[in-house]
Amino acid sequence: MVKVGVIGCGTIGNAAHLPAYTKNPRAELAYVCDIIPERAQKAAGEYGGKAVTDYREVLADPQVSAVSVCTPNNTHSTITVAALDAGKNVLCEKPAARCYADALVMQEAQRRSAKTLNIGVVNRFNTAVNVIKKLIDTGELGNIYHVYVSFRAHRSIPGLGGAFTTKEIAGGGVLIDWGVHYLDLAMYCLGDPEPKTVSSQAYSVLGRPMEDYSFLGMWAGPPDYSGTYDVEDFVTGLIRTGGPTISLNGAWAQNIGVSDTYIDFLGDKAGVRLVYGQNFKLYTAKGGALFESTPEFAASDMFYDEIDSFLGCVENGGKTPANIDYAIRTSRIMQAIYDSSDAKKEVIL
Amino acid sequence: MVKVGVIGCGTIGNAAHLPAYTKNPRAELAYVCDIIPERAQKAAGEYGGKAVTDYREVLADPQVSAVSVCTPNNTHSTITVAALDAGKNVLCEKPAARCYADALVMQEAQRRSAKTLNIGVVNRFNTAVNVIKKLIDTGELGNIYHVYVSFRAHRSIPGLGGAFTTKEIAGGGVLIDWGVHYLDLAMYCLGDPEPKTVSSQAYSVLGRPMEDYSFLGMWAGPPDYSGTYDVEDFVTGLIRTGGPTISLNGAWAQNIGVSDTYIDFLGDKAGVRLVYGQNFKLYTAKGGALFESTPEFAASDMFYDEIDSFLGCVENGGKTPANIDYAIRTSRIMQAIYDSSDAKKEVIL
Amino acid sequence: MVKVGVIGCGTIGNAAHLPAYTKNPRAELAYVCDIIPERAQKAAGEYGGKAVTDYREVLADPQVSAVSVCTPNNTHSTITVAALDAGKNVLCEKPAARCYADALVMQEAQRRSAKTLNIGVVNRFNTAVNVIKKLIDTGELGNIYHVYVSFRAHRSIPGLGGAFTTKEIAGGGVLIDWGVHYLDLAMYCLGDPEPKTVSSQAYSVLGRPMEDYSFLGMWAGPPDYSGTYDVEDFVTGLIRTGGPTISLNGAWAQNIGVSDTYIDFLGDKAGVRLVYGQNFKLYTAKGGALFESTPEFAASDMFYDEIDSFLGCVENGGKTPANIDYAIRTSRIMQAIYDSSDAKKEVIL
Amino acid sequence: MVKVGVIGCGTIGNAAHLPAYTKNPRAELAYVCDIIPERAQKAAGEYGGKAVTDYREVLADPQVSAVSVCTPNNTHSTITVAALDAGKNVLCEKPAARCYADALVMQEAQRRSAKTLNIGVVNRFNTAVNVIKKLIDTGELGNIYHVYVSFRAHRSIPGLGGAFTTKEIAGGGVLIDWGVHYLDLAMYCLGDPEPKTVSSQAYSVLGRPMEDYSFLGMWAGPPDYSGTYDVEDFVTGLIRTGGPTISLNGAWAQNIGVSDTYIDFLGDKAGVRLVYGQNFKLYTAKGGALFESTPEFAASDMFYDEIDSFLGCVENGGKTPANIDYAIRTSRIMQAIYDSSDAKKEVIL
Repeated sequence: MVKVGVIGCGTIGNAAHLPAYTKNPRAELAYVCDIIPERAQKAAGEYGGKAVTDYREVLADPQVSAVSVCTPNNTHSTITVAALDAGKNVLCEKPAARCYADALVMQEAQRRSAKTLNIGVVNRFNTAVNVIKKLIDTGELGNIYHVYVSFRAHRSIPGLGGAFTTKEIAGGGVLIDWGVHYLDLAMYCLGDPEPKTVSSQAYSVLGRPMEDYSFLGMWAGPPDYSGTYDVEDFVTGLIRTGGPTISLNGAWAQNIGVSDTYIDFLGDKAGVRLVYGQNFKLYTAKGGALFESTPEFAASDMFYDEIDSFLGCVENGGKTPANIDYAIRTSRIMQAIYDSSDAKKEVIL
Repeated sequence: MVKVGVIGCGTIGNAAHLPAYTKNPRAELAYVCDIIPERAQKAAGEYGGKAVTDYREVLADPQVSAVSVCTPNNTHSTITVAALDAGKNVLCEKPAARCYADALVMQEAQRRSAKTLNIGVVNRFNTAVNVIKKLIDTGELGNIYHVYVSFRAHRSIPGLGGAFTTKEIAGGGVLIDWGVHYLDLAMYCLGDPEPKTVSSQAYSVLGRPMEDYSFLGMWAGPPDYSGTYDVEDFVTGLIRTGGPTISLNGAWAQNIGVSDTYIDFLGDKAGVRLVYGQNFKLYTAKGGALFESTPEFAASDMFYDEIDSFLGCVENGGKTPANIDYAIRTSRIMQAIYDSSDAKKEVIL
Repeated sequence: MVKVGVIGCGTIGNAAHLPAYTKNPRAELAYVCDIIPERAQKAAGEYGGKAVTDYREVLADPQVSAVSVCTPNNTHSTITVAALDAGKNVLCEKPAARCYADALVMQEAQRRSAKTLNIGVVNRFNTAVNVIKKLIDTGELGNIYHVYVSFRAHRSIPGLGGAFTTKEIAGGGVLIDWGVHYLDLAMYCLGDPEPKTVSSQAYSVLGRPMEDYSFLGMWAGPPDYSGTYDVEDFVTGLIRTGGPTISLNGAWAQNIGVSDTYIDFLGDKAGVRLVYGQNFKLYTAKGGALFESTPEFAASDMFYDEIDSFLGCVENGGKTPANIDYAIRTSRIMQAIYDSSDAKKEVIL
Repeated sequence: MVKVGVIGCGTIGNAAHLPAYTKNPRAELAYVCDIIPERAQKAAGEYGGKAVTDYREVLADPQVSAVSVCTPNNTHSTITVAALDAGKNVLCEKPAARCYADALVMQEAQRRSAKTLNIGVVNRFNTAVNVIKKLIDTGELGNIYHVYVSFRAHRSIPGLGGAFTTKEIAGGGVLIDWGVHYLDLAMYCLGDPEPKTVSSQAYSVLGRPMEDYSFLGMWAGPPDYSGTYDVEDFVTGLIRTGGPTISLNGAWAQNIGVSDTYIDFLGDKAGVRLVYGQNFKLYTAKGGALFESTPEFAASDMFYDEIDSFLGCVENGGKTPANIDYAIRTSRIMQAIYDSSDAKKEVIL
């Protein structure tokens, strides 16, 4: 039985980690930790475990062998490194860190500790994504030459003025919040090819005059007009890799009233359009005819599988697709996107 | 009355130039010229004028004051320069030339001759496009920070193996054939901002093994399997300008079974999605509500207007939006796209 | 916590007031009152509170600080005045009273008591209506010169022979039942301009020979052929105000088989057609094109907001758009419509 | 054979009078007259007759027994009176005159001359209109208590800046141009009841800043921005008659993107909605069911019938529905509409 502590009892802790540990027979939830005491107590009431407010109390308990880090992005690196140095295995929520340098520090701490460090790149456990990866790996798509990543919504800035929109805390906006999922998913399916060049531009436009931002609903809301908005709500970019090129457009908000949230894999034999969080279509040509195919499969619970595979690492070691060594390539690309935007020219990696 | 010669009686000559001159009261069609004698005779029978096979015969007639150049891309520069040097006003079909260097030579010949040189960037006379331009010019969209240009079709390679797919003749594939229209249209609406950097990649994939190319129909067809296919059928890119960034994805063919043929103008006050060749939608926000607006307008015949404004230049001089000095910026961007693709890195202009 | 009594447990009480108080955390439903004991008991069973049949019992309880008056129109004035004089805050259903004189008596009682008197002009809390009002207030429509109000149905006389169709009880027919909503909504959006002249004519036609009235369904039905039908089922009128003119046509029933239920705001910059109870369209012209715009917004529950803003007045005072001082202008117009119809000539206010 | 002169060879002369006389076996077109010589000659070339520029030349010919007056509204009265005094029978285009006083002068001249004076109220010869009139006359609709007249278009100002929009010439705008047809048609069907009161308001709004007027097309165009626009483009009103009330809304242009061009006859037994220039629907109720009926009939050419019945009067005397004595009631109402608008209060007739 793995004794576990969950550090950070906010949205993702409650939506994913806490229920997944509770359901898993090989885990025992020993601690629920949040600097807001009410949150910790509420989680303890709902899922069990001791409610604490200082994560160091969790790390000090020698019985605890694994922790989930579900705190805001700016604390990922500090807590993860402390946990690894305390001999704990760590599952840290995505993004690994606010910046690539911090992610490297985390990877180094993992090397030092020889414990497991997984990142919460949960789409690597999504069933549709894994079906696509298998199609690619078995050559069904032929050579993939380009991937187009579109994560654009009409109005979807989260918690305007709060942690999500404050660079100091989140490290960025729509790229680090949504783009990380899309890019990581694409990288995973492609076998994590080496990034070569990145040219991109990020814009902080629609949310910046906060009181002028019109919206119909707000997740992680409501708006805090006394807060900060200094992150990007639109990003565009072109990435060359050792494999295909990847182009991307992403918007938390835009004055185009459609949701274009999909990833296109363009292969010379076939192609795939995956609508994010939904199903995909496969396009092929055979015998002079063009085919559009819709797959059917039994989808498993990706959060359960993420946690379960982490527990497997804790018990038996080994590397899952969520291992820091794979996930860090996505961090590197994300950093290059921000760097290229700042420099207003292409970054060569 | 302006005496006119039309050089090249292929698709665009018959679809646009010949009927437009015939309908226009200030033009008289004096020559129809094509190196294929049957084509020239057919045009003469239908529209009038003397049928000739050598364009130099047209240029030698001192009565002729204007010519349309509707020949394949590789001859644009030679014929246009000869016509200008012979003292003719020229309307040359798009693209200006196969490459930017040739376009510069044409511009220089125009300077030398002091005659008019217009390029067939016909969307600059499209009513919907001009409504959008007016919305932008009057500030309705606010500051435009990004334009996304998508000219992607499932299967639409023209005349496989023929002039369209032979680099020596056409200069390129989907970018020079379709992309020129989309990019030029965007540049026009934005007021032709100075290009700064271009990073892009072009791919010649689906048409290359010509006999394996599956398709349902073919314009400018049928396929000539003994011909050449050495142009790109997919292109991706990111352009920084003195104004907004522009990102693009274009496909004559792709293994994604949808047509995404639109241009998005993202402004901080409003946005526009123009479906190419059709209508557009305007997206705004007022009083806490989000609005999707559909315009209604009287659309004029853009080919007629293109020809009529050219005749106006012949009679009275002046510069229309089709003038080489404006259209050449699009040529420069197109060249940079091909150059960046060859170099596999960003080009700084 | 505001202790509340709901007086009158008929259609509007059950559909709006009782559930809204129950859902609201700052209200406690202390009494449900109806002269029909079964109705009061049914409401008590469903929503809580003590079931009584005499409203004076509610008014006598010093703990009760607010009452909703949901009884037939002819009792609005008496109960409201008694409630105010007993020191209660009052939300009285629309119309304020059967006639303007009674509404004035109610306003006077409010002045005397210094308590809140709101009228159930619930459209003033409708989201679409408030978006329109904001568009008008910010000048988007320019100068509004005319409003056309059409509340015409093919067959929709309610409860033929009952309270709705008996002048002694209801005060009138389609004007006082439907017209009040449409006119009040228009007046609200226009900023309650001063009425100047009213010319109108009301007709009691299709329902009068009660047994001859053909219909497909009847709300507040079924017909009581032994009852009374002496109210108008059609009304037409023209109102001049300090702002725009307003023309109206209304029919509970007509031998025209269409439903024309909309309000047109004609401005010199833009116009709005609001389909009653649904969405609106905004019509503008820009850059030579005409635009039809459809808004999207998050609609709140107007009955909840009406009740909640009333509770706000009970706790903190203040005037909402439902205050008697605003709503009484609509009463004055309605009275003038009936007066002009009786006199068969224009009334000057 | 009736020798005829057509005075005024503009839109209505060419569209209606000239071809109708030409087709009619009992008429001979002797003169075509227009102060613009080219117009007169063009008409003479097309329809025959002698081309003259001075209508007095037509009146001086004793062989001519009938004239059509198709000149701008401001000359109707002068020419008609001169023609009658010269012993000619007259068919004068609608409206009878720019104002009621002028129409009375025309009626007086008719009395004096004992010749026929018909007005071009051509809908009185429209087949659908006459079917409706018969339904009313035979009691199918029962007692008609209200008529709603809607002549509203999104964008349809004719010849902006020209004769149609200059009060000095036309006498008014949408009311005198379109409203006259709608009102006259309604009056005709109702048996020309005595008008009692008129309250109305006219607005000159959308066309007034001429260069700002957006439109998709323009009949009687193109715009003359150096001309005059001082007529109403919107009018609303309420008329009481010895029979039903009539309410009206009319717009040459409005910021509401629909065309509401219909007339509703509300009877206590049945009702009719006539879409102007098209067919009508009849709404009845029988045996507990509601019926919507669409009539079918052979429509005759109303312009031919108008002219033919005028020729009948010339040959045999008698009064048709177009007789000045009937048509003048519409003139009186129109005058009262303008007067009430100027006075901003109801006019009692």
